[in-house]
Amino acid sequence: MEKERLDALLLTDPPHVRFFSGFKGSTALLFITRRSALLITDGRYRGESRSVQHVAVHIAKRSLFEALGKKVHLPPDSVVGIHERHASFADVQAMKFHLPGMKVRTAAKLIGSVTSVRSRRDLASQSTAVKLSEFVFGEILDMLRPGVREDEIAAEITYLHRRFGAERDAFEPIVASGPRSTLPHACPRGRKLRRGDLVVIDFGCVVGGFTSDIARTVSIGRPSRRVREMYDAVLEAQSRAIEAVADGVRGKEVDRAARDLLTSRGYGREFIHAAGHGLGIEVHEPPRISPRSNDILARGNVIAIEPGVYLPRVGGIRLEDDLIVTRSGAALLTHLPREMIIV
Amino acid sequence: MEKERLDALLLTDPPHVRFFSGFKGSTALLFITRRSALLITDGRYRGESRSVQHVAVHIAKRSLFEALGKKVHLPPDSVVGIHERHASFADVQAMKFHLPGMKVRTAAKLIGSVTSVRSRRDLASQSTAVKLSEFVFGEILDMLRPGVREDEIAAEITYLHRRFGAERDAFEPIVASGPRSTLPHACPRGRKLRRGDLVVIDFGCVVGGFTSDIARTVSIGRPSRRVREMYDAVLEAQSRAIEAVADGVRGKEVDRAARDLLTSRGYGREFIHAAGHGLGIEVHEPPRISPRSNDILARGNVIAIEPGVYLPRVGGIRLEDDLIVTRSGAALLTHLPREMIIV
Repeated sequence: MEKERLDALLLTDPPHVRFFSGFKGSTALLFITRRSALLITDGRYRGESRSVQHVAVHIAKRSLFEALGKKVHLPPDSVVGIHERHASFADVQAMKFHLPGMKVRTAAKLIGSVTSVRSRRDLASQSTAVKLSEFVFGEILDMLRPGVREDEIAAEITYLHRRFGAERDAFEPIVASGPRSTLPHACPRGRKLRRGDLVVIDFGCVVGGFTSDIARTVSIGRPSRRVREMYDAVLEAQSRAIEAVADGVRGKEVDRAARDLLTSRGYGREFIHAAGHGLGIEVHEPPRISPRSNDILARGNVIAIEPGVYLPRVGGIRLEDDLIVTRSGAALLTHLPREMIIV
Repeated sequence: MEKERLDALLLTDPPHVRFFSGFKGSTALLFITRRSALLITDGRYRGESRSVQHVAVHIAKRSLFEALGKKVHLPPDSVVGIHERHASFADVQAMKFHLPGMKVRTAAKLIGSVTSVRSRRDLASQSTAVKLSEFVFGEILDMLRPGVREDEIAAEITYLHRRFGAERDAFEPIVASGPRSTLPHACPRGRKLRRGDLVVIDFGCVVGGFTSDIARTVSIGRPSRRVREMYDAVLEAQSRAIEAVADGVRGKEVDRAARDLLTSRGYGREFIHAAGHGLGIEVHEPPRISPRSNDILARGNVIAIEPGVYLPRVGGIRLEDDLIVTRSGAALLTHLPREMIIV
């Protein structure tokens, strides 16, 4: 904060409030100065707020921002950093109203530089999230056969995540089969799996506030030679990207490793999204791993690498694994086999 | 828009983009002028975007806002309304950068006045969401017995919602038992139900983009006379609030009906949240139904009424039902019995 000339940080969204304070409720403000931290929530969360340590807690009677204005005594020209992608325009308006004269500064980069480096305890939580999702994938493999609906499989993923101790899904599970496998972000529908389908399954959960994010592509019945070639290209692209990961490398270099391989195999135009992303208290976090990302990977970042190829009349294939950036490279957190699964 | 002197509306969050365009993807901008509408998304959603009707679609190669700047040709002093609670500060910054000279105006009220009045088709979706949640509640009642964990029950709710056709939960199910029932927003934990517990179960799902939100309180074993008195007070408070609902009534009048009853029974200080809220494309929507809300209920609003009492060494009780505001009163969408459930 000193380096960025910030007098305070104001966090308004639950994952960031939780990361910096331990408070798990869904309505709170966390105001951090160089010397202290203040959590403001409302009466519904009085009980939850008792577990917060090292942070002063205030229960607001009316609006949280009104209480913030009364409790904060910084000079009027103080500079307050906010996370510009998670603070709403209304949050900023309320802050300007209740902390008159203070200056708002965007601070997503600073905040991301703290949240994107994993402590040992937080890495243990995130590894558990990954292991739990891998276990769930093993369980649902038995379900995959012609006639089963996409949304049944998604429901089972969500159920097993929770049943075995996740707080929740990290995002709505994607189960996209047949022609729908070519939509990278398809919501599960009532479509039934058929022989000859490719099925992209992309899912993750939250443990201790940290996310997992895994994708595998399954062939229902024997795949064509064309599909095998596509799969090999995606698998190889993922390996290249993983090999490119190391402390100090730029996001775009990792993306390029995957993209160059796919382009060389003739699939450059069918790789229509970024090669990966940071993975932490949210599913998409810094560092960005995309064609134009100058973000620099740092030791302790957890990232997901997920190349994919989507061919309209053939199908979609995506593989996604999670890894932690180390001094000299990367260590995989996922241990599921990456070879094509044929059921 | 004309009355509010807006030249355009810019919607940035998925539920609002979906409401006004039908597009179901999670990354898009919807720009609505008085004469036309433009949806901007990225290549991952090309397939999903084909189902959008009456709206021009553009697939952005780089950032959505950059594409917006290139496609929009309004005079530089045009006024653009945004939903200030759903647009991030970064959205507003990007808009100011890519649509230079245009003025940003908050428009949550205008947007809410449209989204909060249910069309017949949308009401059918929302009624289905309510019916589905009621069915799920019937199914999980059999699970409620000493030894079952809160998070097992929550997992089952989520599973059954999806299994029977919901898109997803409307929010993380709340299953709060024994001392935890006094936390209105408790996340389910590993706590096992015990004889003598009160269990607050608060849950909902999404169908066709519209939410349900229901709460019931179950007693594990015979309740004490004290608990029966509390339950009667909450039930009576809810009835009073429901009777107060009608087209043209203010939110605070409905809240007061519940609050006065609970105060008269000695529970005024233990009723620590609002008596209800609008319920639509999101779980908390206009009209607000709280002690200070001047929002006026209108025919076609769907609202939830949820008084509750939380007594530290006794337990918590909350009842929540969904209803639609009619010309002369309200019609309940929920049909579950409201009497105390003893298992």
